[in-house]
Amino acid sequence: MNSNQLFEQILKKRSFLCVGLDTDIDKIPEHLKSKDDPVFEFNKAIVDATHKYSIAYKPNLAFYETLGAKGLVSLEKTAEYIKSNYPEIFIIADAKRGDIGNTSKMYAKAFFENSVFDAVTVAPYMGEDSVTPFLSYKDKWVILLALTSNKGADDFQFSGNPPLFHQVIKKSQYWASPDELMFVTGATRADMIDEIRKLAPEHFLLVPGVGAQGGSLAEVAKYGINEKCGLIVNSSRGIIYADNTENFAQVASEKAKGLRDEMNNLLEQYL
Amino acid sequence: MNSNQLFEQILKKRSFLCVGLDTDIDKIPEHLKSKDDPVFEFNKAIVDATHKYSIAYKPNLAFYETLGAKGLVSLEKTAEYIKSNYPEIFIIADAKRGDIGNTSKMYAKAFFENSVFDAVTVAPYMGEDSVTPFLSYKDKWVILLALTSNKGADDFQFSGNPPLFHQVIKKSQYWASPDELMFVTGATRADMIDEIRKLAPEHFLLVPGVGAQGGSLAEVAKYGINEKCGLIVNSSRGIIYADNTENFAQVASEKAKGLRDEMNNLLEQYL
Repeated sequence: MNSNQLFEQILKKRSFLCVGLDTDIDKIPEHLKSKDDPVFEFNKAIVDATHKYSIAYKPNLAFYETLGAKGLVSLEKTAEYIKSNYPEIFIIADAKRGDIGNTSKMYAKAFFENSVFDAVTVAPYMGEDSVTPFLSYKDKWVILLALTSNKGADDFQFSGNPPLFHQVIKKSQYWASPDELMFVTGATRADMIDEIRKLAPEHFLLVPGVGAQGGSLAEVAKYGINEKCGLIVNSSRGIIYADNTENFAQVASEKAKGLRDEMNNLLEQYL
Repeated sequence: MNSNQLFEQILKKRSFLCVGLDTDIDKIPEHLKSKDDPVFEFNKAIVDATHKYSIAYKPNLAFYETLGAKGLVSLEKTAEYIKSNYPEIFIIADAKRGDIGNTSKMYAKAFFENSVFDAVTVAPYMGEDSVTPFLSYKDKWVILLALTSNKGADDFQFSGNPPLFHQVIKKSQYWASPDELMFVTGATRADMIDEIRKLAPEHFLLVPGVGAQGGSLAEVAKYGINEKCGLIVNSSRGIIYADNTENFAQVASEKAKGLRDEMNNLLEQYL
């Protein structure tokens, strides 16, 4: 998927919402737990209930890996279900990978050849040759960690002058075009989104941290929206665990619609 | 496994060799490809042939993930085979993980509760709360990326004053003791091992890059050995792909023995 297709979808759905599929087997509704593949059944119901309001899904790989091979099967089934039923949707493997060139090549193959993901999150610590193997696939994306939404972001990301996250954003633009590279930018630091938008005026930013982590959507939009929207805002726990009765999908749908309505207003205001 | 047990094993085997199980289905001998689980059969043969000369194995997760759920099964079987047959061996999941706290917790669970790994490699970019969830397991280890062996290490790891990799080594020592934290230190920069050893006199260093990547074992030992050895030196391709006929395990054994003999000499010289 290229950036124009992504933008078209945003305009059509009046949303730049990504739903994070951080599916924790211990947190899903009881009635699903007796199913053959409870994680997939949960994801399927969430996707069916929220796809009208969201442009992307972001399974967080840790939650699947912790279940071993069975978890990977649930993940694959989820990605394939989305791709076959809602082909317009952008699917992000939130994996935070990154290794020496020949290893990153294997990760890229895992996500982009053997699976149907459109993008993968990548950690920048190991530099160019850890990132570029993901870039050899047409219409597939690297989403590079720039400024994360957690407390530990303060440990290294602000170090140096200019701060490390500036260096990551600047240097990586020599490796990839805005049509294959996005940046993770935590919503818990909305003022920083202003700074990052100046460093990367054309790039999409993937913004986690709205909702459970406390970020404000209005602030993110104020500083982050560019002429092609340029934002994908993720919410995980605030949507998928809003309810844990048999009604969970309906409640998730309402929560996603709530964010979509807010996003619709912000798109009207800024675009 | 604690550092004393690791040191005992080093003294007993006169080796600080780790064999990297970067098992690529396209590179294993033809006669294994018709087996039910060729990757596991290959690993099993390599482990049986080299365990006398090595203290650790390091499966590189990318090579298993690229095969999907089937790959994870091969990985699990490999780790369990090593743990049941050679319980003295240290098993490293080379995964380069790291995410916000609640996600790192899931990765930690995957490697340390649901699998038998003793250690996992972790990327430091996201800071303290991305690392500490791995530290809540007794006798399990975080191996934090400090200075990697690839070209891209120059992009960010030397930035700042002191350079980023110094900051990572210094700051992380507030998070964990030398009995639960090691550092990845690429052998392609042996002079840097001297610098790192001064910053972390007691820690074990996991040193990749000897062999195919060009690092020198003698140089690594000269600068890196401390009073408990303090080194785990990894070789992957130089051992496991030294031969790809039916004789591969025998040749791998000879290669591992060659490194062990060199290590034995270095231990005599420096310890």
